[in-house]
Amino acid sequence: MSEKLGFRLNVTAVCSRTAKTKTLPAGLAPSLITDDWREVVSHPDVHIVAELIGGTTVAREVVEGAIANGKSVVTANKELIALDGFAIWQRAAAKGVTLAMEASVCGGIPVHAVLREGIAGDRVETLFGILNGTSNYILTEIEQHGSAFGDVLAEAQRLGYAEADPTADVDGFDARSKLALLASIAFGARIQPADIHTEGIRRISPTDFEYAKQLGCTIKLLCSARREGDGLFVSVRPALMPLQAIMAGVHGPYNAVWSKGAFGQDTFYYGRGAGPLPTGVAVVSDLMRVARELRPGPAHRVPPFGFTDLVETKPLPMGLQKRSWYLRFRITDQPGIIRDLASILAEHGISIDAVLQLPDLDKHNLPFVITLETAQESAVRSAVEKMSQLPFMVEPPLAITMERSL
Amino acid sequence: MSEKLGFRLNVTAVCSRTAKTKTLPAGLAPSLITDDWREVVSHPDVHIVAELIGGTTVAREVVEGAIANGKSVVTANKELIALDGFAIWQRAAAKGVTLAMEASVCGGIPVHAVLREGIAGDRVETLFGILNGTSNYILTEIEQHGSAFGDVLAEAQRLGYAEADPTADVDGFDARSKLALLASIAFGARIQPADIHTEGIRRISPTDFEYAKQLGCTIKLLCSARREGDGLFVSVRPALMPLQAIMAGVHGPYNAVWSKGAFGQDTFYYGRGAGPLPTGVAVVSDLMRVARELRPGPAHRVPPFGFTDLVETKPLPMGLQKRSWYLRFRITDQPGIIRDLASILAEHGISIDAVLQLPDLDKHNLPFVITLETAQESAVRSAVEKMSQLPFMVEPPLAITMERSL
Repeated sequence: MSEKLGFRLNVTAVCSRTAKTKTLPAGLAPSLITDDWREVVSHPDVHIVAELIGGTTVAREVVEGAIANGKSVVTANKELIALDGFAIWQRAAAKGVTLAMEASVCGGIPVHAVLREGIAGDRVETLFGILNGTSNYILTEIEQHGSAFGDVLAEAQRLGYAEADPTADVDGFDARSKLALLASIAFGARIQPADIHTEGIRRISPTDFEYAKQLGCTIKLLCSARREGDGLFVSVRPALMPLQAIMAGVHGPYNAVWSKGAFGQDTFYYGRGAGPLPTGVAVVSDLMRVARELRPGPAHRVPPFGFTDLVETKPLPMGLQKRSWYLRFRITDQPGIIRDLASILAEHGISIDAVLQLPDLDKHNLPFVITLETAQESAVRSAVEKMSQLPFMVEPPLAITMERSL
Repeated sequence: MSEKLGFRLNVTAVCSRTAKTKTLPAGLAPSLITDDWREVVSHPDVHIVAELIGGTTVAREVVEGAIANGKSVVTANKELIALDGFAIWQRAAAKGVTLAMEASVCGGIPVHAVLREGIAGDRVETLFGILNGTSNYILTEIEQHGSAFGDVLAEAQRLGYAEADPTADVDGFDARSKLALLASIAFGARIQPADIHTEGIRRISPTDFEYAKQLGCTIKLLCSARREGDGLFVSVRPALMPLQAIMAGVHGPYNAVWSKGAFGQDTFYYGRGAGPLPTGVAVVSDLMRVARELRPGPAHRVPPFGFTDLVETKPLPMGLQKRSWYLRFRITDQPGIIRDLASILAEHGISIDAVLQLPDLDKHNLPFVITLETAQESAVRSAVEKMSQLPFMVEPPLAITMERSL
């Protein structure tokens, strides 16, 4: 992190109900370990307090206590910010400290940074979101397996993906809070979550996905905020959207935000909605930003490349790379072709994954495909070079990688 | 913009070869209109210079002249930054001014902001990009219409989507410069574009898309930078990727970046790669950021909601919203159903778009669908309410909107 900041952040204090009995990660040596948050927010060496406890009671005391003591705050607390974030920020501003909240909505997607700064020069006209991972997971399962809502929900509860009381997720209330917060950042509007028209996904059936498919569409629990004149339409409810829309590709527990501005056309942001590590990235990114603001002056501005220095780098030779491969041949058909190609691959220690041939093709310029299991590029290149010399080759084989992990 | 900044940005000077003969937009009243850039970079009232001329000769003089005179610089210049951005930034840093370059790569996607700040707390392990709109457009056309590369290219040239000399686009050189720049920000690595393994798309044929489809894949010109130990594999070349990958949904002239970090898992960013308006948004967003840095102190920090104030907002009543609709019914089949439903819709001034019925369904609990042309929600709600009372309804109709513009 210091290669990005140009200085180090120190963990001064750690507070949790069980902090005293926990083993902290190696390298983390705070001068204070406590179960009393008051000791943290009043500690003279603490400049930034990260509030990660959630809820709106103790968390509010921590956040407000920190601000009152002149500490900046980084928070992952959706409930507190949706409920009262603007007033909390006003208190922070009056004290000259910072409130940072990237982790509060779409923890894994830096959508606050995008809306607040990245496209600040645009005027957002429409914001669509898929903001609840549980309901998106359920809809994906209904679509892909034709299961009924109740069965998918029960299975999701069994697997721990859905709460015993699923109301917040499947009836849209969790998404509603997140939409209120994102709409604030996109439109500068303070909206009470309770004022947002909200419908859940309980009535969506496999039949609806069949019809949607006939219409070239899929169905998502769509959070929507759109300008209309001086007003905003804001809603959370299921909607059909074209299958070819980039947002239709948001499956399972992922979240996404789609924004269209008056000038910049559409942009789209996608990632994990929550989870300890994605949320952790958002918190650490916020800590870095706030730390920079606390050390003003040209030396601590964000460098345009993100890093304070760039390391002169020669890319690794591609020959060392291990990938799986697609080889497409054009040949004059004759006996023994697969034998000859397989021999060359075997000589190079490369395993065949599959052989594919489409029907009814020109026997004098016959395309077919061999896919390879993971192999080192230098071996594949050498094999392909040797294959190119075979008399039945109409042209050199086309060799391209398969990026299955995407 | 001032509702986000809390202060106004003034256009002090405008310089172009034809500035003196052009009509400037209303409201833009610079004190200086000139065709001599030296007058701009030496003007005492200019604090930030936006360089939008491109190329590496005059543009370099402008950028370096501005920095030498203590002005911050916002640039959209991919060539100059890829060639020499790090040295230019070092000069800016030594002068205590800022270099901002969001518009230089993926103009319509704030991917610099994301990598530099939004996910700064992560350690990027893999970055994939679709960074050349022309080649992505060509591949999309080959895939969707089965046309040969040469035919699609000729058509793209005729339509002005591809240059007369298409080499930079279809042979991967444009994408390579962009990848070098993004890899700098993602990995802190300074990479010469010429060191990047680069292959173009000339050999990709409709047959390859047919085979790819059999493998559950599509083909993209993939920019790739991956950590391996202390090194990086960096390449631009066609690759297969799973059709269900979010990146496979990037069609036509769009650009996208996919990043996977050591902690935050995968995130994905999508938008227009270029174009005057998306690039303009990036430039203005950069101007706002730099202007904030020039006015340091708590009052000018980026507010967490992006706006300096939030306007208390009641969402517009949903009844006023105009959308197209999907109505799904469950009925006991009998004659006259369509007649009854169509009558109610006609009474409410609503036009039917389509009637859909899947074959072989239970006649006593028969689902079917009517889609509506754009109609006001209050009319649709009222019609649906009336339909609910019809004796053949097994349950109230499900009414959800269709977001066709996504």
